[in-house]
Amino acid sequence: MPRLITAFSNPIVKQVGKLREKKHRRREGLFIAEGLRILTEARQQGYIPEILFFSADVSHPLLDELVAETEAAGGDVIETNADILHKLSGKDNPQTLLGVYPAFDTSLDRIDRSQAPLWIVAQALRDPGNLGTILRTGDAVGAGGLILVDDCVDPFSVEAVRASMGALFTQRIATCAWDAFLGWLRAGDGSLIGTSLDATQDYQQPRYTAPAFVLVGNEAQGLPAAYEAECDILVKIPMLGKADSLNAAVATAVMAYEVINQWRR
Amino acid sequence: MPRLITAFSNPIVKQVGKLREKKHRRREGLFIAEGLRILTEARQQGYIPEILFFSADVSHPLLDELVAETEAAGGDVIETNADILHKLSGKDNPQTLLGVYPAFDTSLDRIDRSQAPLWIVAQALRDPGNLGTILRTGDAVGAGGLILVDDCVDPFSVEAVRASMGALFTQRIATCAWDAFLGWLRAGDGSLIGTSLDATQDYQQPRYTAPAFVLVGNEAQGLPAAYEAECDILVKIPMLGKADSLNAAVATAVMAYEVINQWRR
Repeated sequence: MPRLITAFSNPIVKQVGKLREKKHRRREGLFIAEGLRILTEARQQGYIPEILFFSADVSHPLLDELVAETEAAGGDVIETNADILHKLSGKDNPQTLLGVYPAFDTSLDRIDRSQAPLWIVAQALRDPGNLGTILRTGDAVGAGGLILVDDCVDPFSVEAVRASMGALFTQRIATCAWDAFLGWLRAGDGSLIGTSLDATQDYQQPRYTAPAFVLVGNEAQGLPAAYEAECDILVKIPMLGKADSLNAAVATAVMAYEVINQWRR
Repeated sequence: MPRLITAFSNPIVKQVGKLREKKHRRREGLFIAEGLRILTEARQQGYIPEILFFSADVSHPLLDELVAETEAAGGDVIETNADILHKLSGKDNPQTLLGVYPAFDTSLDRIDRSQAPLWIVAQALRDPGNLGTILRTGDAVGAGGLILVDDCVDPFSVEAVRASMGALFTQRIATCAWDAFLGWLRAGDGSLIGTSLDATQDYQQPRYTAPAFVLVGNEAQGLPAAYEAECDILVKIPMLGKADSLNAAVATAVMAYEVINQWRR
């Protein structure tokens, strides 16, 4: 049976509230995901929360199933209210349920490139919304996952999980240094595809082959020149206006859809 | 000569700080843009700030030009510090300069569709980051501007201006109700292109003609069925994974690049 907790001073409320900070996520090995849609996606992928908070004034058959499965798995099911959910999520209009999950192992050797024709690689990505949006796009284009190179924002941040709309649970995620990634990449098949303002080749020109690794750089700086030099294919997305670059998540999507569009023909 | 203001209690600091709220922007008819890159883009488009704040510890020839032009235009140039800029922008790492601009006239009749082959139309868009990112993409694909239909987030919000990376100043912006938009659209040339989960036609199938109006719906609900019914062309972007939709700004970009890619061939 769910237990009722509505006090801000409750230790479990305090503990979960701290998971909005990276250092606490690291220490506890836990992260937060919110909303029926995302938690249902997680469940379909086999992820059951260790702790499930839900608002008492909501009823939905999918929520009942989540509650039952969380209890069956030995998880802690907590009935609460909108004020507590607001405190836990940091959102003005919080979702009516929130799950706490163990963080995934993000070592690079857990990526099996043969499982998908397309992989996305992001370097020094700083915005959690962009990271989540790239995961969501990765799911849409049938990518296997997202490899985070160098110092990227935490994929388990509340904002990244939220922007991923559940794709955090369907995409493999790895974090590593550039040298480690490059060593791993060159130990197998695959072409590294970068976009650059300085490229001479239009992004629709090359014929892309699987496994394709689409590489996106930091929001402000783009890719370092040394990283561009390692790309097998360097292309530019046409920019017809005054600006010289796209949002990182947008550029990733435009590039990834070109790759899969070629394969769909 | 710039005047020095470093007190939070200064009336102009208080006044500009309030512009982060929509009701104050509306009342004052002013909005905030930040950073040398965006303010320089604005200047190139002929927009000079009424008030220019800059941090004393920065020097750049483009800043000198901005200061000179703002003073020449009768604007108020204020030297300040990072604490004040943090307060005004709401950002932990604020830009070193910040301009206050008069809001644009966003009436639909200021849009001249003959000025561009492509226009973006967003309906009930709620996220300021998405709005700004769509403006930035609009600039990149050579769109003429963004028509905001129904109750969209304010394009002059600090977050939207920031995400637009200056495209707020290069793209025309109109706000109107759906019926007004439809009346205006049908009074001239142009096809309305919507994306829908229920569409049977792949987005690469139709041949798009100018002027093309790419319509994107609300982040959570997508387009209302009645709005989809008004589209001349209704297409679906392939979704190869578990999720059934893309981020709104990403979907807009994927669709808009397909349109211009056809025209580039």
